[in-house]
Amino acid sequence: MTQTLTVDLGARSYPVHIGQGILDAAAEHIPLDLTGRKIFILFDKNTESYAASLEQALAGKTGEICSFGIEGGELTKSLAKLDEVLGWMLERRVDRHSILFACGGGVIGDLGGFTASVTLRGIPYVQVPTTLLAQVDSSVGGKTGINSPHGKNLIGSFYQPAAVLCDLDTLQTLPERELKAGYAEIVKYGLINKPDFFDWLKQNGEKLLALESGALAHAVFTSCQDKAEIVAADERESGQRALLNLGHTFGHAFEASAGYDGSLLHGEAVSIGMVCAFALSVKMGLCAQDDFETMRAHLISMGLKTSLQGTPLKDDAEALYGLMQGDKKMDRGVLKFILVRGIGQAFVSSDVKKEDVIEVLENV
Amino acid sequence: MTQTLTVDLGARSYPVHIGQGILDAAAEHIPLDLTGRKIFILFDKNTESYAASLEQALAGKTGEICSFGIEGGELTKSLAKLDEVLGWMLERRVDRHSILFACGGGVIGDLGGFTASVTLRGIPYVQVPTTLLAQVDSSVGGKTGINSPHGKNLIGSFYQPAAVLCDLDTLQTLPERELKAGYAEIVKYGLINKPDFFDWLKQNGEKLLALESGALAHAVFTSCQDKAEIVAADERESGQRALLNLGHTFGHAFEASAGYDGSLLHGEAVSIGMVCAFALSVKMGLCAQDDFETMRAHLISMGLKTSLQGTPLKDDAEALYGLMQGDKKMDRGVLKFILVRGIGQAFVSSDVKKEDVIEVLENV
Repeated sequence: MTQTLTVDLGARSYPVHIGQGILDAAAEHIPLDLTGRKIFILFDKNTESYAASLEQALAGKTGEICSFGIEGGELTKSLAKLDEVLGWMLERRVDRHSILFACGGGVIGDLGGFTASVTLRGIPYVQVPTTLLAQVDSSVGGKTGINSPHGKNLIGSFYQPAAVLCDLDTLQTLPERELKAGYAEIVKYGLINKPDFFDWLKQNGEKLLALESGALAHAVFTSCQDKAEIVAADERESGQRALLNLGHTFGHAFEASAGYDGSLLHGEAVSIGMVCAFALSVKMGLCAQDDFETMRAHLISMGLKTSLQGTPLKDDAEALYGLMQGDKKMDRGVLKFILVRGIGQAFVSSDVKKEDVIEVLENV
Repeated sequence: MTQTLTVDLGARSYPVHIGQGILDAAAEHIPLDLTGRKIFILFDKNTESYAASLEQALAGKTGEICSFGIEGGELTKSLAKLDEVLGWMLERRVDRHSILFACGGGVIGDLGGFTASVTLRGIPYVQVPTTLLAQVDSSVGGKTGINSPHGKNLIGSFYQPAAVLCDLDTLQTLPERELKAGYAEIVKYGLINKPDFFDWLKQNGEKLLALESGALAHAVFTSCQDKAEIVAADERESGQRALLNLGHTFGHAFEASAGYDGSLLHGEAVSIGMVCAFALSVKMGLCAQDDFETMRAHLISMGLKTSLQGTPLKDDAEALYGLMQGDKKMDRGVLKFILVRGIGQAFVSSDVKKEDVIEVLENV
């Protein structure tokens, strides 16, 4: 079964297809006339078989198809790799009707989307996320980007895909560690504004991690739906969309400090970051201790990371705070935080004391 | 006197201010609350005094002001330079409320606009064009970009400025060769869809090149107005906006072949390119020989380039045709040309024979 939802952005609206067997029917799921279009498939070398399925599904229905496998990992989100991918497409005479498919995890999606946005001032692209994290988060909403030595995702664009194809079958080969990292972003939606969904996850999280198809489909659909609604209301993050960064201001600093070497995955950093956001909210008297305990207990019971223990960070609390200040969420010199009044009640705040943040960082 | 027109793009509309003394009143001309905003001024080293005026005009009305002078010239429109400018801003903790001013010719505007579009997924920027070419063409319309080894402007974005400040005083120090190069883009509007303006230019072109303020103001305003109307109707160049590329498909190939070393300016290449477009249209029986002679005679009388003689290109006609095929205006493998049915009657065509193009290239 395929479920479809629409990210509603006027002329830039697009479908998100979620289900099994989506890759094999890829050509039907793209709301563009494919005839004669040159196709560029950028894929993670780890997901070569899915890129091959995609190529097979498109063969004969489009113009020439070119494929290019690259390494995953945050280090791939660089200007040097952008240059390489651009060169690959320009050499093959990409034109404005060409379509770039980004097949892989969030790294491939972010790099692929950004590349599409700057190729000939923008060509259409299709997200084909093959990790749980990319399916429920990064592939929807048009945030693209690469990293700078100064921080994560500091170079990028808002550029919406033509379609998102979430084939749940691709999750069957996902390593457990990545599955759990993706689960953190799913829990996030419950914690932001969907307390009922958080309750559902407490009941069904185990089934999800066991890759039961019904649970998986429900969780991916609900997550994408929540994200689609938030993005439709605030595409360029001037307000509500910032809620999606729950746990991310902390998380990005942890990732930067760990060095993007795979020792701390994005979803793991976000999991710890959400614990920090709740702890900070409790400390500031905004959130009941019970809600904090409930959320942390669920993360622990699912085997997610909730502390920095065992993660060799290069920085102390003070230095981590400095890294947080390099984040995009700075507003005229003031750091913005996503805080909570309880589970499902997140909000944006610029009114956070440095010493409270430092204390939270020291205790996590 | 300051004249103001609006590029009408809904929420992304912005003013173009044209007149004398605009730089000194810069703060009043920007439709943003400047209070506390960090200002980044990217300028061409040749226009340092204008950047200094701008800085002086903004001082005390904004947050911190940082300035960065770089070399002009097409070689500056590179990924390496983008990296350098990004690093300069990120080191100084650019945030989403910061404003980038691009002060200089088209190169600085294209690089600056592109940099702004990818910094933290987009920060506001202001075009401060100090050359005639940039004032009448590249600063209006939101086309930003850099060059690739595969061709000109192949990497970029559509990203509209917050305002355009055309200070006519800055043209007083412009070398004559650059003035003439800019004049080619002014003539272009007459040739595309403003035959009356072409007639006006035949009468007043000399005054314009003599920098008479009334003539200059009228020509810059009329050019920007024509461009603003075309852009408002077709921001992303799915149709009519392509008309603005009259002479550019040929011109880009000439520039690429000359090697972007300053031996052939963009406006010079466009001037020769427009002669080619008219010659091709005559050859195809679309345009009267008289109109061709009239337009060429005017370009010659104004001292503009109308042939490749004296320009040492590295390629023959066949190779130039190959370079044209790398242009962005390719559509599913078919090269698009801007042709004319006469002066002021340009149109887009995909129906051009290679041998006709080759013959035009051999004779120019």
